Amino acid sequence: METVSTNRAHGGIQGVYTHASVATGTPMTFSVFVPDHAPGAVLPVLWYLSGLTCTHANVTEKGAYRAACAEYGIVFMAPDTSPRGDDVPDDEAYDFGKGAGFYVDATEAPWAAHFRMRRYIEQELPALVAQHFPVNMARQGITGHSMGGHGALTIALRNPGRFRSVSAFAPIVSPLHCPWGEKALTGYIGADRAHWRQYDACAMIDDGARLPDLLVDQGTADNFLAEQLKTYLLEEAVARAGMPATIRMQGGYDHSYYFISTFMAEHVGWHAARLQG
Amino acid sequence: METVSTNRAHGGIQGVYTHASVATGTPMTFSVFVPDHAPGAVLPVLWYLSGLTCTHANVTEKGAYRAACAEYGIVFMAPDTSPRGDDVPDDEAYDFGKGAGFYVDATEAPWAAHFRMRRYIEQELPALVAQHFPVNMARQGITGHSMGGHGALTIALRNPGRFRSVSAFAPIVSPLHCPWGEKALTGYIGADRAHWRQYDACAMIDDGARLPDLLVDQGTADNFLAEQLKTYLLEEAVARAGMPATIRMQGGYDHSYYFISTFMAEHVGWHAARLQG
Repeated sequence: METVSTNRAHGGIQGVYTHASVATGTPMTFSVFVPDHAPGAVLPVLWYLSGLTCTHANVTEKGAYRAACAEYGIVFMAPDTSPRGDDVPDDEAYDFGKGAGFYVDATEAPWAAHFRMRRYIEQELPALVAQHFPVNMARQGITGHSMGGHGALTIALRNPGRFRSVSAFAPIVSPLHCPWGEKALTGYIGADRAHWRQYDACAMIDDGARLPDLLVDQGTADNFLAEQLKTYLLEEAVARAGMPATIRMQGGYDHSYYFISTFMAEHVGWHAARLQG
Repeated sequence: METVSTNRAHGGIQGVYTHASVATGTPMTFSVFVPDHAPGAVLPVLWYLSGLTCTHANVTEKGAYRAACAEYGIVFMAPDTSPRGDDVPDDEAYDFGKGAGFYVDATEAPWAAHFRMRRYIEQELPALVAQHFPVNMARQGITGHSMGGHGALTIALRNPGRFRSVSAFAPIVSPLHCPWGEKALTGYIGADRAHWRQYDACAMIDDGARLPDLLVDQGTADNFLAEQLKTYLLEEAVARAGMPATIRMQGGYDHSYYFISTFMAEHVGWHAARLQG
């Protein structure tokens, strides 16, 4: 692992790091904020998975999480959204290929060689982080935005007991039922929709997976709400399952980091209450 | 005035606007955050002047001011740092020409035609803002970063009584005594250093100008501290003048928005205490 940059911020260190990923077969970059802490202490860690077109940099610059993470003593981890580099296949569209890994392990050519974001986020990066940063891996939370909200929900549902707290900002809740999801899953893992259920939060809940609790914020002025995000599908799934969830429709908010940064401190506080109990 | 964009954020509206400036003879873009407020109410306004290479966008995206401005009920105004456009002369360097207006009225060719940032910030933009936004112009504060800290200090010193509160992040305190200032003032207003004193905070204080109070934060790991910023010159000037000032050296912080965003909420609170008394 190499250090790209470190900046003192909110009493801690905002770092950016790169490493050679076995899962993706490429260099991968991520950012980590480590608040000020006692020597030898280990802190809870909150994972943030980003949305389409983003890298680690968007939330690092615009996410407004550092004040809250410093207040509560929580490490904030922001990975990239796909493999990068000249050897990695891409697509002209913003919603497929680079910047659009969808947190799946691709099985279809030409994507299968590098688009292994599930394995990267679920296995490889946690091991790296546990080795290099002062984190208590028994106290992990996960959140994300849009495609990254989908990633947070499905990774938490697939790994029961790993995350004490789960939230999302404007998540894709059912790739089976939206154009973004249909395009990505067809391209990365093929046309058999039965295989998609492992990457669909609503289907996983219907199939019996559960979260300990859930906080979701969704803006009512989000241009993607009606066609892509369809928050009501998640509301219906958690109702059918009797799963505790707080799903809030936030009047007038859109899909941007203006929305995310507005509710970020509240999400960090919500995670902190569950990570530090 | 035309609206470029509006986004709901922290209960208010983050807007970006453009207008045809008489002072610069160009279109000018600025951002304004207006917190939620009672119908008909007018709010104090805090001006933020940006540093070299920046537009309104840097602080708007990375400044982390909205939570505090919403909490205290303060409008946040972020102008651009120079005229823009194909008709505007430029320089290859990052520290002169576009993005480097230094908040002066240029008198030298070819800059004098458009580089009228003093007149723009001191006269034209306040009149426009008073006309279009719910602001109480009897309750103005001003702050800024680096070149914008220089702007905030000198504009406040030149306009006694206009600003109830003044602060700065890592300001250029004496253009007479740093390479950035010498280059810019020579280029924009000529070689006669006697004319520079109206654009030099330390010289203005020595010449009798005063601020009601002052808060400055400066990072000790700022790469520009020794050669360009020379905070000690301001410390010496306020000491000679017996002017109240809180000048804080912040250990380990650099010149970036990681530094600015760390202390932004505290600055907004400091302004609020003086704007709302």
